[in-house]
Amino acid sequence: MAQSIRLAVIPGDYIGPEVTEEALKVLSAVCPAYDIKVDPTHYDLGAQRYLATGEVLPDTVLAELREHDAILLGAVGGRPGDPNLPAGILERGLLLRLRFELDHYVNLRPSRSFPGVPTPLASDAPIDFVVVREGTEGLYVGNGGVVRKGTPQELATEVSVNTAFGVERVVRDAFVRAQGRRGRLTLVHKTNVLVHAGGVWSRIVAEVAPEFPDVTVDYLHVDAATIFLVTEPERFDVIVTDNLFGDIITDLAAAVTGGIGLAASGNVNPDRTAPSMFEPVHGSAPSIAGQGKADPTAAILSAALLLDHVGEQAAARRVEDAVTTDIAARVDAPARTTSQIGDDIAERVSN
Amino acid sequence: MAQSIRLAVIPGDYIGPEVTEEALKVLSAVCPAYDIKVDPTHYDLGAQRYLATGEVLPDTVLAELREHDAILLGAVGGRPGDPNLPAGILERGLLLRLRFELDHYVNLRPSRSFPGVPTPLASDAPIDFVVVREGTEGLYVGNGGVVRKGTPQELATEVSVNTAFGVERVVRDAFVRAQGRRGRLTLVHKTNVLVHAGGVWSRIVAEVAPEFPDVTVDYLHVDAATIFLVTEPERFDVIVTDNLFGDIITDLAAAVTGGIGLAASGNVNPDRTAPSMFEPVHGSAPSIAGQGKADPTAAILSAALLLDHVGEQAAARRVEDAVTTDIAARVDAPARTTSQIGDDIAERVSN
Ligand SMILES: CC(C)[C@H](C(=O)O)[C@@H](O)C(=O)O
Ligand SMILES: CC(C)[C@H](C(=O)O)[C@@H](O)C(=O)O
Repeated sequence: MAQSIRLAVIPGDYIGPEVTEEALKVLSAVCPAYDIKVDPTHYDLGAQRYLATGEVLPDTVLAELREHDAILLGAVGGRPGDPNLPAGILERGLLLRLRFELDHYVNLRPSRSFPGVPTPLASDAPIDFVVVREGTEGLYVGNGGVVRKGTPQELATEVSVNTAFGVERVVRDAFVRAQGRRGRLTLVHKTNVLVHAGGVWSRIVAEVAPEFPDVTVDYLHVDAATIFLVTEPERFDVIVTDNLFGDIITDLAAAVTGGIGLAASGNVNPDRTAPSMFEPVHGSAPSIAGQGKADPTAAILSAALLLDHVGEQAAARRVEDAVTTDIAARVDAPARTTSQIGDDIAERVSN
Repeated sequence: MAQSIRLAVIPGDYIGPEVTEEALKVLSAVCPAYDIKVDPTHYDLGAQRYLATGEVLPDTVLAELREHDAILLGAVGGRPGDPNLPAGILERGLLLRLRFELDHYVNLRPSRSFPGVPTPLASDAPIDFVVVREGTEGLYVGNGGVVRKGTPQELATEVSVNTAFGVERVVRDAFVRAQGRRGRLTLVHKTNVLVHAGGVWSRIVAEVAPEFPDVTVDYLHVDAATIFLVTEPERFDVIVTDNLFGDIITDLAAAVTGGIGLAASGNVNPDRTAPSMFEPVHGSAPSIAGQGKADPTAAILSAALLLDHVGEQAAARRVEDAVTTDIAARVDAPARTTSQIGDDIAERVSN
């Protein structure tokens, strides 16, 4: 059945637009064969817009974004240490605001190794797991504050918020994914220290587990999880964890599977009450912008996650397969520019 | 000058007593040559005591511990999932209580690679850094709570507490250590999301830095730090970070330098208002207890940190050198039992 996707595109800053262009190129190449129409609208948001206008995410723009079926984001962020960009302004005001306002409670981060891609690990056992990171609670809510700021008596707090409602919905999502994969779910937390939050996470995993008898559940403290991610990453299938632990272990997971140049992510609202957003895990990388050096693979794989989310599994697999073939062909081949990689993958999906 | 060390020894559970015995053996072997007298008193604390008596850390025992010059701890902890051990009871009630009551604000965790020790990384660039983890604040304070426990409306919070006082003292300690090493200090935090806590950490590092003109300061988000710990760990010299981030990255650091069998740590009170405590990073490992399989090296290296702390640098170096030699001799050699390793290292320090 023909589907038309109203796609909001936020290219962002520096390499953001460069990689986004290639992701759109690949979408254009794959969609006709599956009778999918993509109707993109570009939104100018990010560091450059903020620096020029003082605007981060105007309410009117947010309202327009809501009218789309999905959002594709490149990367936002200014030059490191830019004094005109207060710490966290884009993160809290744009990226996290979108995740919270659009109720992206499943932050989906697949990690798999690609044959031929060098990794920092000595072992080349194949890695294939997905982290289901909670996206709307935890320490990311922004609760907390500062008293006596800038004085020797300063006190700053951060409050991690964990609700049964918020934990249960993401835990259920993770169980379903584990059921559709190798049937193994690992809860990562720090229940021996964070006993309040840990209590609700442990209880809900234990309560939901009997509904998924095919899924084996285990538990790791976050510190131990980082050890296994480098010594035995092949043991993982689905990991479910809170917002901050998920942030940390997914960067590590990207590193052990060949770098954040390949790591895709989805900020998913499984209830579809608002559009989901897909983005590479990497940042805007000002230092390599404008030189054709950015690897668009993570952005292209994010577009595949997007296709998956809108129900176009066949098209999604085709993009992923094209990427896998392209990556395999990189071994011992001369370096290509951002747009050459996009061209090659686009050509592979059309064939 | 002759020194007598009143040493409180907490062997703990399972492999805890096994590795502690070897650490004491090595102390006995090294001390005479440096005119150091060690006067040990054993304290029975841990899971087994709790299960037998319901006691975790009686106030009278804490008061006695305070009367010592230093504490050597093996490892505490029961069998995973033991229903009679509530989550966090030993962690909050014993380990963390000691860190808080004895004001162990510098949690010192050196990481270095030993030639010949296999690591999970492909690169064998030599690694040598130390993490200065804050030990008395952050999410470890135990603030927070639960409402509507066990219901679909449950809400659990955890509060991270960060004071200028607490941050400044650990940051100063880290600068001093960096000055005595390769002059490079990295602050690890998540200032773009945890803007309140991040603000006080960033401000204090920036304020103290001019007093240490020889120290180069940089900053990494904790997620990015995990990437560098696997792709380029040799870049680090001294890392300063908060309690939870320090917990996570030191386990990862131990993994990339050959495993937690080798990772030593000190819970240090630099002001000496109470005894500091030294312990291996590993746990009580019930599954390998009683078989002579535990590696006592981390416990022995923790004893070296203890010697360092009480001003016995020459004796500390001797233990470390003996360990380095012993580790080098492990390559292609038959496996030894816990006590054989202790014997061999004790013999190396006496020679
Ligand atoms: C940029 C930042 C707010 C973000 C996060 O911490 O979630 C990023 O690190 C990520 O993982 O998407
Ligand atoms: C056992 C636990 C409380 C402890 C911590 O989280 O600090 C441990 O992981 C450590 O790193 O010493």
